[in-house]
Amino acid sequence: MTADATPTCFDPDLLPSALCVLGVGLIGGSLVRAAAPHLPVFGWSPSEGTRAAVAAEGYDVDSTLDASLERAVDADALVVLASPVTAFPSMLRTIDRLAPTVRLTDVAGVKAPVHDDVAALAPRARFLGSHPMAGTTESGWAAGSATLFSGAAWVTTLTDDTDIDDWLAVATLALAVGSRVVPTEPDAHDLAVARISHLPHLLALALAQVGEQGGSLALSLAASSFADGTRVAGTRPPLIRAMCEANRNALVDAVDHALGILGVARGSLASTGSLAKLADAGHMARAAFDARGADLQPVTLDGDDLVDQLLAVGAAGGHVSAVRRGDDGPVVSAWYPEED
Amino acid sequence: MTADATPTCFDPDLLPSALCVLGVGLIGGSLVRAAAPHLPVFGWSPSEGTRAAVAAEGYDVDSTLDASLERAVDADALVVLASPVTAFPSMLRTIDRLAPTVRLTDVAGVKAPVHDDVAALAPRARFLGSHPMAGTTESGWAAGSATLFSGAAWVTTLTDDTDIDDWLAVATLALAVGSRVVPTEPDAHDLAVARISHLPHLLALALAQVGEQGGSLALSLAASSFADGTRVAGTRPPLIRAMCEANRNALVDAVDHALGILGVARGSLASTGSLAKLADAGHMARAAFDARGADLQPVTLDGDDLVDQLLAVGAAGGHVSAVRRGDDGPVVSAWYPEED
Repeated sequence: MTADATPTCFDPDLLPSALCVLGVGLIGGSLVRAAAPHLPVFGWSPSEGTRAAVAAEGYDVDSTLDASLERAVDADALVVLASPVTAFPSMLRTIDRLAPTVRLTDVAGVKAPVHDDVAALAPRARFLGSHPMAGTTESGWAAGSATLFSGAAWVTTLTDDTDIDDWLAVATLALAVGSRVVPTEPDAHDLAVARISHLPHLLALALAQVGEQGGSLALSLAASSFADGTRVAGTRPPLIRAMCEANRNALVDAVDHALGILGVARGSLASTGSLAKLADAGHMARAAFDARGADLQPVTLDGDDLVDQLLAVGAAGGHVSAVRRGDDGPVVSAWYPEED
Repeated sequence: MTADATPTCFDPDLLPSALCVLGVGLIGGSLVRAAAPHLPVFGWSPSEGTRAAVAAEGYDVDSTLDASLERAVDADALVVLASPVTAFPSMLRTIDRLAPTVRLTDVAGVKAPVHDDVAALAPRARFLGSHPMAGTTESGWAAGSATLFSGAAWVTTLTDDTDIDDWLAVATLALAVGSRVVPTEPDAHDLAVARISHLPHLLALALAQVGEQGGSLALSLAASSFADGTRVAGTRPPLIRAMCEANRNALVDAVDHALGILGVARGSLASTGSLAKLADAGHMARAAFDARGADLQPVTLDGDDLVDQLLAVGAAGGHVSAVRRGDDGPVVSAWYPEED
């Protein structure tokens, strides 16, 4: 049983009563489409053209942030921050003014800075951070899809003061749109994605330049290794920057790690002609990625220390596949590595 | 009209009378399958298990290199070196002993070292170097496919002493298996592939390690940017090493170029928090890759300076789509950038 093959289940009674998606680009727009079969969904876009496109597909979109937030209060909706992370501070100030205790999540690619912003600017909100690990190099409403989250990891961030009810609402939404739920702490998330999401973007951008500066012959010879290695350089630069620059400290460390490995390999190639160490270690690491999830077994979590149990699942490479309310509190079905 | 959409045509009369493929792994085995509909094909494998698999699919495979080379002489076959490049010196010594003036090509990922080896060890062979820009991370006969070369660039290397008849035979074979033919000099090829094929392998190997050292959480969150960025790290280490180590000088320069770009970006991120320069330049470079071939127009080449014309086509990012014999010598149909 691999992680990707795990079925997900959700209890409709645990879904929030409505969903308010602030920003309907690739991720927000996909969430509108994916969630609409399960609960009332409305959204906000500052762009008239986008609103027309959303409405033309039959979805409900407001023209002002204030209007959406007032509806969210009335409907007791879960509000989702789905704009670029650079827009969050001003949105959070508005939330604190119009919907201060609303249930709140986000879908940004960094988590600790968002937790800090919420604590500073909308401290009364019932916040739990999210990061669905899904995307394409395209952006905007038109690029979205109801199936974008199917089979993806959906990160949920837990801290010492997390209310488990807030987590249940977000986790149930993630399960409803087909994701597996990965609980983690905000800092652990940011360290991980610097390595597996932000660094790949930087390497792709550098590789694209080295290839292009090889001239017309080099570009005409480039095949799948170059195409795959540079694919994410096709993402719009403002989106790459918003994501990577917000995770600056963790990303600098990840870049330094990569520069160290490449520097050693460069020295070995130049001096002895050998790439043995890089080739062997890199190949084994890729094999570990291919084998991820292979040792996961189903477990059931409940009890007073549920947050700690959830964090242990995420840290071990596991995930949550179902949540329900039991007689004595939430009961969580998860996948966790079997004991050696 | 993009390069990938260019139809290829070939004149069956210009095909060699037979094809002798020495080594039937991914590339050699694919060539056996792709060429078999067009001309008599036989091959050699030192592995009994591989020979059984080849024969079981109805192809003709010898158990000794000597036997294959004797058949090649009798049939006036084009001999293809399709073993790992590290095996070439010993094979070339055998060729010089048993089939010294045979028509010869290879499919290795480096070209200048192969030209040097041939000049030193089998100097009488009618040699013209090849490099089909196609592959997968799998290896061996079972991974091959008759369609591997369809739509791919097939590099042919030309030098001052190239006999155009040798080029016609190899180019016609490449066209027959569905490739577009890119003429270039050996050194220019090696500089280009260091940037667009060998560097991508080194970056993938380094990225795989940085991700894996992020632990179970990082691997469980890794999605398409990491999967694509590390894909070629799945290639068997001996094959990566044989390819990259043989192109040591050009690859060291390409690695230094990448390290320079990443070092500047790292400094900017750490000091100012900005990745603007990297994101903008890398995105533009990827766009140039996506647009490659868009300005190509059909041209016809002939005359005494055909080798120079062919090299100009390759250097400009163009390629050959058909070759035939005219009344006054070869006539070549090519795609070349339109004049500004």
